[in-house]
Amino acid sequence: MKAPFSDLFKPGLPAPAQKWTGWPEFNFVGGHNDEASIPVDALKEAMDRVLTREGSTLGTYFLQSGPLGFAPLREYLTDKLARYSGIKCETDEILLTSGSLQALDLVNGLFLNAGDTVIVEESNYGGIFAKLNARSVNMVAVTVDEDGMIIDDLEAKLADLESKSIKPKYIYTIPTVHNPTGTILTLERRLRLIEIAKSKQIPIFEDECYADLIWDGERPPALRGLDDSGLVVYVGSFSKCIAPALRVGFIVADWPVIAQILPMKGDAGSGALEQMLLAEYCSEHFDDHIEKLRATLEGKLDVLIEALEENFGTEAEFSRPPGGIFLWVKLPEAVDSSRLAIVAAENGVEVNPGREWSLESDAGNWIRICFANPSHDTIRQGMANLAEISRKEFGHPRFIANK
Amino acid sequence: MKAPFSDLFKPGLPAPAQKWTGWPEFNFVGGHNDEASIPVDALKEAMDRVLTREGSTLGTYFLQSGPLGFAPLREYLTDKLARYSGIKCETDEILLTSGSLQALDLVNGLFLNAGDTVIVEESNYGGIFAKLNARSVNMVAVTVDEDGMIIDDLEAKLADLESKSIKPKYIYTIPTVHNPTGTILTLERRLRLIEIAKSKQIPIFEDECYADLIWDGERPPALRGLDDSGLVVYVGSFSKCIAPALRVGFIVADWPVIAQILPMKGDAGSGALEQMLLAEYCSEHFDDHIEKLRATLEGKLDVLIEALEENFGTEAEFSRPPGGIFLWVKLPEAVDSSRLAIVAAENGVEVNPGREWSLESDAGNWIRICFANPSHDTIRQGMANLAEISRKEFGHPRFIANK
Repeated sequence: MKAPFSDLFKPGLPAPAQKWTGWPEFNFVGGHNDEASIPVDALKEAMDRVLTREGSTLGTYFLQSGPLGFAPLREYLTDKLARYSGIKCETDEILLTSGSLQALDLVNGLFLNAGDTVIVEESNYGGIFAKLNARSVNMVAVTVDEDGMIIDDLEAKLADLESKSIKPKYIYTIPTVHNPTGTILTLERRLRLIEIAKSKQIPIFEDECYADLIWDGERPPALRGLDDSGLVVYVGSFSKCIAPALRVGFIVADWPVIAQILPMKGDAGSGALEQMLLAEYCSEHFDDHIEKLRATLEGKLDVLIEALEENFGTEAEFSRPPGGIFLWVKLPEAVDSSRLAIVAAENGVEVNPGREWSLESDAGNWIRICFANPSHDTIRQGMANLAEISRKEFGHPRFIANK
Repeated sequence: MKAPFSDLFKPGLPAPAQKWTGWPEFNFVGGHNDEASIPVDALKEAMDRVLTREGSTLGTYFLQSGPLGFAPLREYLTDKLARYSGIKCETDEILLTSGSLQALDLVNGLFLNAGDTVIVEESNYGGIFAKLNARSVNMVAVTVDEDGMIIDDLEAKLADLESKSIKPKYIYTIPTVHNPTGTILTLERRLRLIEIAKSKQIPIFEDECYADLIWDGERPPALRGLDDSGLVVYVGSFSKCIAPALRVGFIVADWPVIAQILPMKGDAGSGALEQMLLAEYCSEHFDDHIEKLRATLEGKLDVLIEALEENFGTEAEFSRPPGGIFLWVKLPEAVDSSRLAIVAAENGVEVNPGREWSLESDAGNWIRICFANPSHDTIRQGMANLAEISRKEFGHPRFIANK
C-alpha cells in the first residue's frame, strides 16, 4: 500500500517500517534493561515529591530552567559526572536530550555533510553505523583489541587520510565498556588518543552510555575528564543505568559547542517529567541503585555464559566483559550470523548479527547477545533454542557440548 | 569564545544560542499555559496509578507498545480525535512524537529538500517559517481573512506555480484557531481546499494544535476528518490543552505515510512518562479539564482586551479570537514592531513582532500577544508598560485613552 502522494517524498528515504508485532519470546537485541530492577516504588515517591513541588511549572516550556533542560538534573549531573567519570563541568556545559540517540543526531548535525569522513572503531554500535550511513558519511574503521581502540592503527589511518588531504570530522569512540566488545580503553591509550586529537585538532566524540555498569565500579576517567583542550564532545544517557523508556540523554561540551548545537534542537525541550523524575530520584538513590543493578546484570551474564557453554561448548568464543549488557560471541566460521539472525527470529529468538555491529570483513560469524532484559530461565531456554536452530541450519554447534 | 574545532562545523549553521537568563517579568511570547490550571493533584494520582500498574515496563524501549508510542495513549486519541475533530483513525495511523515540533520536523523530513516549494498562509506560526528557512525551502504565501485561508488566492497561487512547472510539496495550514490571527476556516472553504488538493494531488499538512481551546467548543471537523483520500497529514499536540513542558505531539496519517516517517524518528521513542501520564489522566479528566481551561483562558483574553483598550485606545486594532492563547494586534503604522519588541524586551516586556509571524509586507506594525501564561495583574501591568514604551519610542499610542 502506497501513500497517494509518495511521488512527492524526498528521494533516498530509508525503507519504510513494518508494523510492530510485539516482542519476541527470546529477546536478546536492543538495550533493554532488567524490568525487575526498575525501582518503581522509589520512582513513584520521587515523582510525587517533584510534582508536588514543581508540577505547576509544567505550564511553561522549559519549566523554569531554560532550553538546556531541567536545572536540578543538570546540577545532579555535574556531581555525578565528577564522581563517576572524572568530568568537571558547569551546568551550562550540559544539554539534556531525548536519549543519547538525539544527542548523536545533534552532534552529527553539527559536523556532518554527505561525503564527510569520520573515524570509528571497526566493531561498533550498530545505531551509529545506521545514522552515519543515512548521512552518506565515509567511515574509516580502526581496529580494536582487548584494550580497546588500537592507537597505532588510529595513527596509521590518520596518516593515510592526511596523505589524501582528508581531515576527519571526528573520532567516534565508546571507550568504556565498548559496544559490542565490552572492552575498556586503557588509561595509557586514552592519554595517547587525546594527544593525537590535540596535535591534529580532531574532535573526539565520546559515547559513555554503558560505563556505570562495570561490575567492580573501577574505570579510568572519561576522555572528556582527561582532556583540558575542549576537544572532547561527550554523550551520556540514563537508559542503561535507570530505564531505557525514560528518554533522557545528555551532551557535555564547552559552551560554544553547546550554543551551536542548541538551535538545531528544534523541539522546545525534551520530556519534562523524565527529567524531573531523574533529578529527584538520582540525587537520593542513584549510587545504591547502580550497585544493585550491576550485581543483577553480572548474575545474568553468568547465566548466559553457563548457557552458552552448555549449548555451544567450545564453538562459542567470547571474552567475559567487565560490565555492560551484551556479550560479543564468535561462532564457527560456517555459521552465517546474518542468516542465523533471520532464521532464529522466525523461531522467536532475536540476536544481533555481527555484520550490523562491525565493519570487519570477518564479522559474519559473530553475534551480539543482550542479556539484561530476559530472565535467567529465558536466557537458558533461548540459548538452547539458538543452538538447536544453528545446528539445524549450519551443522554447528556439532553436538550439545555438556549433555 | 569559539570552539577549538569550529572550523570543522558544517557550513550554514544557525546563529549560536545565547545563555538563558530567565523569563522576562512580562512574558507575552511562546505557547506557555496558565500555570494555575495545571491539574497537579490529578496528574499525581494518574502518574501513581500508571506507574503502579506498568512502571516496570520502563525497563524496555517502547514499553510494551512498539515504536509508534504508548498504545493506551494512541487508543485514547482515536476516541478523542473522533469526538473533537471528526477524525476516524486506527491506532497504527498515529505516531506519538516529542511535541508537535518533532512532528513538523518529521513531516518536513519526509518531503523537503532545499529548493522545494510549499504553500503556507501568509501570516503563520513563526516556528514553521524558521524550520522552512533552515531547510532553504521556498514559501508561497496565501492571503487570509476572517474566515481563514482565501481559497481563491490559493487557486491563483497554484495556477501561477503550475505555469512555472513547480509542484508544491504540500499546503501547510492551521485551519482551526489560526496562529496568529485566531480565525477558523469555514466548512465551505475546508471542502473547497480538499477538492483542490485532490484534483492537484497535493498533500495538505494540517496543524491543529489550538483547536481544543475554542471558547464555545464549536468547530468544523478537521480537514483530516473531512477528507477520504488520505491526502491530509495531520499534526496535533497536548501542549496547549494540558501542559507545554509535557512534550507529546502526534502525527495522524495513513499507515504508508507513518511507515515512511517512522524510520526517520531515530530517537528510540519519545518520553514514556509523559505518554503514560497523558493516557491515564486524559481518559478520565480531559473533557472536564478542557472546559475549565477554556473559561480561564477566555477570562484572560477579556483582561487583555480591556488592558489594550485602556492603554492603547483605538490605536490597537484586533479581532476577538474565538479561542486560543494569542491575540494578533495591529498598532499604528508608525510603530515598527520589530524595534518595539527589542526595546520592550530590554524593559522586561516580551511580545512577538509581526515580521516573525507573517510574510506580509505590511506586518511591520503588528504584534502577537500570548495571554495564557501571565496573571490578570501581569497582563494589565504589562500592557500599561508596553504602551508607555511604545509611546516613548514611536509617539504611539498618542495618549492614554481612557485615563
